[in-house]
Amino acid sequence: MKPVKIGLLGFGTVGNGIASVLNRSGDEIARRAGRKLEIVGACVRNLDRNNPYNIALTTDANLLLDNPEIEIIVEIMGGHNPAKKYITQALNNGKHVVTANKALIAVHGNDIFKLAQEQDLMVAFEAAVAGGIPIIKIIREGLASNQIEWLAGIINGTGNFILTEMKEKGRDFAEVLAQAQALGYAEADPAFDVEGIDAAHKLTILASIAFGIPLQFDKVYIEGITKITREDVQYADEFGYNIKHLGLAKRKQSGIELRVHPTLIPKKRLIANVNGIMNAILVKGDAVGPVLSYGAGAGSEPTASAVIADLVDVVRTLNADSSNRVPHLAFQADRLSNFPILSQDEIKTAYYLRMQALDKPGVLAEITRILSQNNISIEQMMQKKSNSGESAQIIMTTHRVKEQLMQTAITEIESLNVLNQKIALIRIESLWGS
Amino acid sequence: MKPVKIGLLGFGTVGNGIASVLNRSGDEIARRAGRKLEIVGACVRNLDRNNPYNIALTTDANLLLDNPEIEIIVEIMGGHNPAKKYITQALNNGKHVVTANKALIAVHGNDIFKLAQEQDLMVAFEAAVAGGIPIIKIIREGLASNQIEWLAGIINGTGNFILTEMKEKGRDFAEVLAQAQALGYAEADPAFDVEGIDAAHKLTILASIAFGIPLQFDKVYIEGITKITREDVQYADEFGYNIKHLGLAKRKQSGIELRVHPTLIPKKRLIANVNGIMNAILVKGDAVGPVLSYGAGAGSEPTASAVIADLVDVVRTLNADSSNRVPHLAFQADRLSNFPILSQDEIKTAYYLRMQALDKPGVLAEITRILSQNNISIEQMMQKKSNSGESAQIIMTTHRVKEQLMQTAITEIESLNVLNQKIALIRIESLWGS
Repeated sequence: MKPVKIGLLGFGTVGNGIASVLNRSGDEIARRAGRKLEIVGACVRNLDRNNPYNIALTTDANLLLDNPEIEIIVEIMGGHNPAKKYITQALNNGKHVVTANKALIAVHGNDIFKLAQEQDLMVAFEAAVAGGIPIIKIIREGLASNQIEWLAGIINGTGNFILTEMKEKGRDFAEVLAQAQALGYAEADPAFDVEGIDAAHKLTILASIAFGIPLQFDKVYIEGITKITREDVQYADEFGYNIKHLGLAKRKQSGIELRVHPTLIPKKRLIANVNGIMNAILVKGDAVGPVLSYGAGAGSEPTASAVIADLVDVVRTLNADSSNRVPHLAFQADRLSNFPILSQDEIKTAYYLRMQALDKPGVLAEITRILSQNNISIEQMMQKKSNSGESAQIIMTTHRVKEQLMQTAITEIESLNVLNQKIALIRIESLWGS
Repeated sequence: MKPVKIGLLGFGTVGNGIASVLNRSGDEIARRAGRKLEIVGACVRNLDRNNPYNIALTTDANLLLDNPEIEIIVEIMGGHNPAKKYITQALNNGKHVVTANKALIAVHGNDIFKLAQEQDLMVAFEAAVAGGIPIIKIIREGLASNQIEWLAGIINGTGNFILTEMKEKGRDFAEVLAQAQALGYAEADPAFDVEGIDAAHKLTILASIAFGIPLQFDKVYIEGITKITREDVQYADEFGYNIKHLGLAKRKQSGIELRVHPTLIPKKRLIANVNGIMNAILVKGDAVGPVLSYGAGAGSEPTASAVIADLVDVVRTLNADSSNRVPHLAFQADRLSNFPILSQDEIKTAYYLRMQALDKPGVLAEITRILSQNNISIEQMMQKKSNSGESAQIIMTTHRVKEQLMQTAITEIESLNVLNQKIALIRIESLWGS
């Protein structure tokens, strides 16, 4: 059979990974797919670049988007524009699309999938979440018979690298961030990684395919790791936990919790021991129980691995009746649910609190009185001398309580004027069954 | 659209799980698949049984196999006969097949897939390996762009439960096996679990889809866990390892290693910390790196989860051109490879050895001389007093060496007549990159 012709939009790290893998393994991939994959060309902003596999480069996207020989467009340029414009053009020209662009799918995916549906075309996006881990396929197809109860993911490698270094070497956040930037893990503007935006993009996508709801990035509660201190990491350890930056999506009676924040996880859980730049996603299905998937969440060839797996999937359906395809968001497009996303006030979880209090009589009594009045019960507590000696560190974990009550208690405690700084709060998830 | 009609061959634990999941989640599954799944009936040996979902039962398989309304036959009876006969009949009658029968696929899969290919039908077998973990899909589709370098799996839950109990509670093999039988984890005849046959069936299947080779169960080297002692578990721990019963498949320059045996794994690896009845498979792809998949490897609903995911896949292809399907063994049927399976003599690995030696001068010198003559270098060694006091336990780990040299050395050492019992040997795998 004739090779399937492919055009690349963008040719950076991931593009080179795709070219490298197809060059090395093209024959073995064709043994699986039944057809060869052939890159016709790549659109770039600047022609002057490293190009060891001699891919034909152009600065004019139209040469690919309007090329009738090309059946699949791969978008690996990132960002919203012109990526969205190009994908729209590709779909309007009858071409399937494979993209690694999580920001675009999380924010504009509903529009893009609607157009693809109308055009009877596929938009595949395995590489948009957790790089080489085939988590989209695992949830969308592998766990198709499950009502997903919740999922929890370490889905930003840079953030996990930073937390791992803080834990293993007792280092400060700022110091490790600088190292991550030097190693090329973090962007020059690291906000997407450490403020949780990148993880929220990925969580948005995972929640949609898990629960059959439209993409709703703007409803995700987002908290980064920038306020986590070396001490928090150490105290969490003393309580029996590791701190991980999790994306969490849970189906509750009244709606769906969607949140990204630092989380204490019991050390005995496998996912608490996922370290460095690696990613892992724990999915709890009602039939299968917990399923953990672990692997490289970013990088040239791991991301290329996902892009090419998508290409093979698209190739398999090129001649198939489109009604037989796996739906973009796992559920048939007309069967998505409008189940509400819960506000962060309504979630229920356990908490870790760290307070720097004046070292004088009655302070602890006041604090515990406010907690008790808000129905918050303490699970573990310890008090440590602060370095300056004039204040005391009070560190505690609580049992599960509604976030609203916790925030009320915190406001009340902070208004006592007995603390030297704001209360540090980190949520705790037991991730039961993992 | 009309529901897809399904017939079940067998209605035990897994059959009840399928009925239970379809009863509870049938609507949600239809939201994914686009069509409802409907069980028309189940064939059983004995009509008198627990049947809470009122499935129509029959003792005559022909009523299902010859029913023109039924499009998919689900075989969950296990064993070779009459399962093979029934599947053959179903395929000859133009019905797709979903099976959870690892023994049948591992031993007769080549014939069954050949017939399915000729009949343009699918035989799906996700549930045959690692229960609810969608590992067939992960390797066959999710990692389709990778040259798989090796895979290592904890793929027998009973064996892992036994080794976990031995480790965590310092108990003896026989005692924990009896408990596993009482808990219903192990069969009354536990040989399939603890002698490694069940794991070898699963490994056979995984190796075929990873490397694109025909199923070759008879080439698997198989060693069970029956000889592992409480002391081995403890000494391994002292050396920094956990003992797991692994299925290992590795692609080498000269052929493929296929082996099931107890294995020392560094404790820091995630897979070394997979405990109890859980399963996990670590796959190393050349592009993606290591990918770990963890979940329930058996049980009623976890296995049903995989069977129903297969049903959804089959439903999606009911009207599709068969040339677009995912090939049974991942690679197109006419593009399988005849790459040889290596004999166990040719594999190369590191070793743990435990010897009970007479406590007299010169014994250790003799032993180390023989090891050295066979090019075996010692990595760690310790000597312990045995309980009786008249002999010494010598425990060591070695660097990597060809198995043939190790077996020669063992024969020579045992012929010295300075040991009280045969040498205990356990292989060590670093599972690098995990």
